[in-house]
Amino acid sequence: MNNQNTRVVLGRRPVGEATPDCFSIETEELQPLTEGMVRVAVEYISVDAGTRTMLKGEGFHNQVGLGDTILASGVGRVIESTVADFKPGQAVRGGLCAQTIATVPANMLEPIDDSTAPLSAYMGILNGSTGITAWIGMHHIAKPQAGEIFVVSAAAGAVGSIVGQIAKLAGARVIGIAGGKAKTDYLLNDLGFEAAIDYKNEDVSARLRELAPDGINVFFDNVGGPILDAVLDNLALRARVVICGAVSQYDDMDNITGPSMYLRLAERQSTMEGFAYFHFPESFAQAEAELAQWLADGSVVLPESILDGIERYPEALQFMFNGGNIGKLLVKAG
Amino acid sequence: MNNQNTRVVLGRRPVGEATPDCFSIETEELQPLTEGMVRVAVEYISVDAGTRTMLKGEGFHNQVGLGDTILASGVGRVIESTVADFKPGQAVRGGLCAQTIATVPANMLEPIDDSTAPLSAYMGILNGSTGITAWIGMHHIAKPQAGEIFVVSAAAGAVGSIVGQIAKLAGARVIGIAGGKAKTDYLLNDLGFEAAIDYKNEDVSARLRELAPDGINVFFDNVGGPILDAVLDNLALRARVVICGAVSQYDDMDNITGPSMYLRLAERQSTMEGFAYFHFPESFAQAEAELAQWLADGSVVLPESILDGIERYPEALQFMFNGGNIGKLLVKAG
Repeated sequence: MNNQNTRVVLGRRPVGEATPDCFSIETEELQPLTEGMVRVAVEYISVDAGTRTMLKGEGFHNQVGLGDTILASGVGRVIESTVADFKPGQAVRGGLCAQTIATVPANMLEPIDDSTAPLSAYMGILNGSTGITAWIGMHHIAKPQAGEIFVVSAAAGAVGSIVGQIAKLAGARVIGIAGGKAKTDYLLNDLGFEAAIDYKNEDVSARLRELAPDGINVFFDNVGGPILDAVLDNLALRARVVICGAVSQYDDMDNITGPSMYLRLAERQSTMEGFAYFHFPESFAQAEAELAQWLADGSVVLPESILDGIERYPEALQFMFNGGNIGKLLVKAG
Repeated sequence: MNNQNTRVVLGRRPVGEATPDCFSIETEELQPLTEGMVRVAVEYISVDAGTRTMLKGEGFHNQVGLGDTILASGVGRVIESTVADFKPGQAVRGGLCAQTIATVPANMLEPIDDSTAPLSAYMGILNGSTGITAWIGMHHIAKPQAGEIFVVSAAAGAVGSIVGQIAKLAGARVIGIAGGKAKTDYLLNDLGFEAAIDYKNEDVSARLRELAPDGINVFFDNVGGPILDAVLDNLALRARVVICGAVSQYDDMDNITGPSMYLRLAERQSTMEGFAYFHFPESFAQAEAELAQWLADGSVVLPESILDGIERYPEALQFMFNGGNIGKLLVKAG
C-alpha cells in the first residue's frame, strides 16, 4: 500500500489571478488512523470557480490557510477505516480536498452508489456546486416557462450547460453566452440551444437586441461584469434575473464591479434574485434523483474535461478562470 | 386676466449637477385657445428627483428639449376652457410643467376633488411619484411584516417619509437613513422611527451592524451608491431589497456605479426587485383612497417644503439634489 499522500498546498495568497505559482505540491507520510477517521483514495477532484474565493483569507466562505491543503470536493473509495459504516471499497464523496489520499472524519463523508451513475458524475451533474446548483436555481428561482426567452452565461460551463438544458426541457427558447467558437459550436450542435453568443468576438448587447427584440424574460447569470450589464439592458418587462455566481469577479473580490444597469430592474419591473444551493437541503434528494434520471435517459448531458494527475490541479484552476473548459472540469487524482 | 405665462426653460444640458445656470426664466404672451385645449392657472409644481433624468436628452424617460419648458407635474385651476368637462374653477392635476399658466389638451388633465384633501396633497401624498409610489412599492413589492427590520434610504424625503410610516403601520421596526441632524431628528421625533442613521456623519455599515446584528429583512432604496452597498452587506437571510430610485446617481446616468455588494443576494438568499408606480395602474384608486384616509385620520403625515415663486424652481431642483428638504418639495407658482 502507498504510504504517502500528495497534496496541493496554498503557498501564497493570490493577488488577482490565482496562478500556479501560488501553490506547491507536497508529499507527507500517512499516520496511523485514529478513532472515527476514514482513509479514502481520491479518484476525482472537482475544480470549481468558487474555490478562488476561499483563497482570500476572509469572508463568509470556508477559507484555506497558508500551508493548508486546498479545499475541494472529491469522490473516491475507502481504503482503511475505523468506522463500521465505511468499509474498504465503499465509494464516497465529500470535502476530500486537492490530494491523493484523504484522511477525514467519517461524518464528513457521504456513501454513494456508483451502480446508478459513474463516480465522476457525482462531481458533475450530481454535485452540489454543479448539477444540484443548476437544478435548484431553475426549480426554486428561475422557474422557466414554455416560450420564454431564456439566457444563460458561462453556458458551456458545468452549471450553465445543465441550466440551459433544463430550460430547454421546460420549453423555453435558450440563448447561451460563452467565449470562443468551440464553445458556441458546442452549445448549438451538442446541446441544441436556439442561439449562442460568443462574448469574446461579438457585441453581446447588439446580438441580444437582434435575437430577442422584445426582450429577455429570464437570465441565469454565472459571470457578472459587462455581460450582466448587457443582459440587464435588454430585459423584457417583468423579467427575472437569477444570480448564481460571478466568475468574472472572483479574482478581485475586494473590488467587485456591480451591475451599473441595475436601475433597469425598476424601469422594467424586474427582479434580481440570488441563491446558493446549500440553502435548499430539503431539495437535494429530489434534485439528485431527477438529474440521475435525465442523465440515464439522455435528456441531459454533461461532458467532462479531465486533467490527469494531482500536480495538474493548479493548472486546472487557471484553465477554468481563463475559460478553457467545456462542461465539468475534473482532476483525476489517482 | 393675466395674459402672460412665465416658464422655466432648459438653457443647456447639465453636465453633472443641474445648477440653476442651466435654466432660464422666460415670459410669453398667451395665444387664443384652440379646440380641445384647456388653460390652467398653476398653483403648485412638484419638484422630483426623476426630473434630472429628463434633462439628459436620451433614455427611456420623457426628455426635455433645449428651449423647452421643464416637464413637471402640477396642480391648479382651470381658467379658460374649450371643453365641457373642464369648467373654469375646476381643480386639476397633470403634466402642467414648470410654468405659471399651462395650456394643455384636456385629455392630459385629471379633475381632482379638493374637498377631501388640500390641492398641494395631490402633489405630495396623493401624487404618483410620491405617495402612490410609496404605497405601490410597499403593497406590491416590499410587503413589510410585523417585527421585521425595515430600512429606508432618503428617509426624510417625500417617498421615504411615507414608506417608513407605512412600514410602521405594518408593525415593522423602522430604521431611516438620511443626511444631517435636522433630518434624523425629524425621523425620530416627528415620524417616530425606531432609529435613524445620519449618513453624512456616521458609518452606515457600522451603525446597521449595531442596530440590526441579526441583519436587515427589508430595504427600500431611493439612493443607490455606497448606502445601497452598506445595506446589502448587512442583509439577513431571505431579505428583500426594493429598488425605487437612485438619487445619488442621477447627476451622471452614463456612469452609474452599480452595487458592488450584489453577490450578497446569492450568499443571503435574497431578492432585489425594482418597480415603477406606472406599471400598476389598477392600484391607483385603492392607493389614493387609503392614503387620503391615513392623511385624514393622522396615521400618516407628509410635511411640505414650499419655495414661493416660479423663478425659484431651478433653485428648488438644486436644493433637492443637495438633500436640503424634508418631506415633499413644491414650488408655489401662482
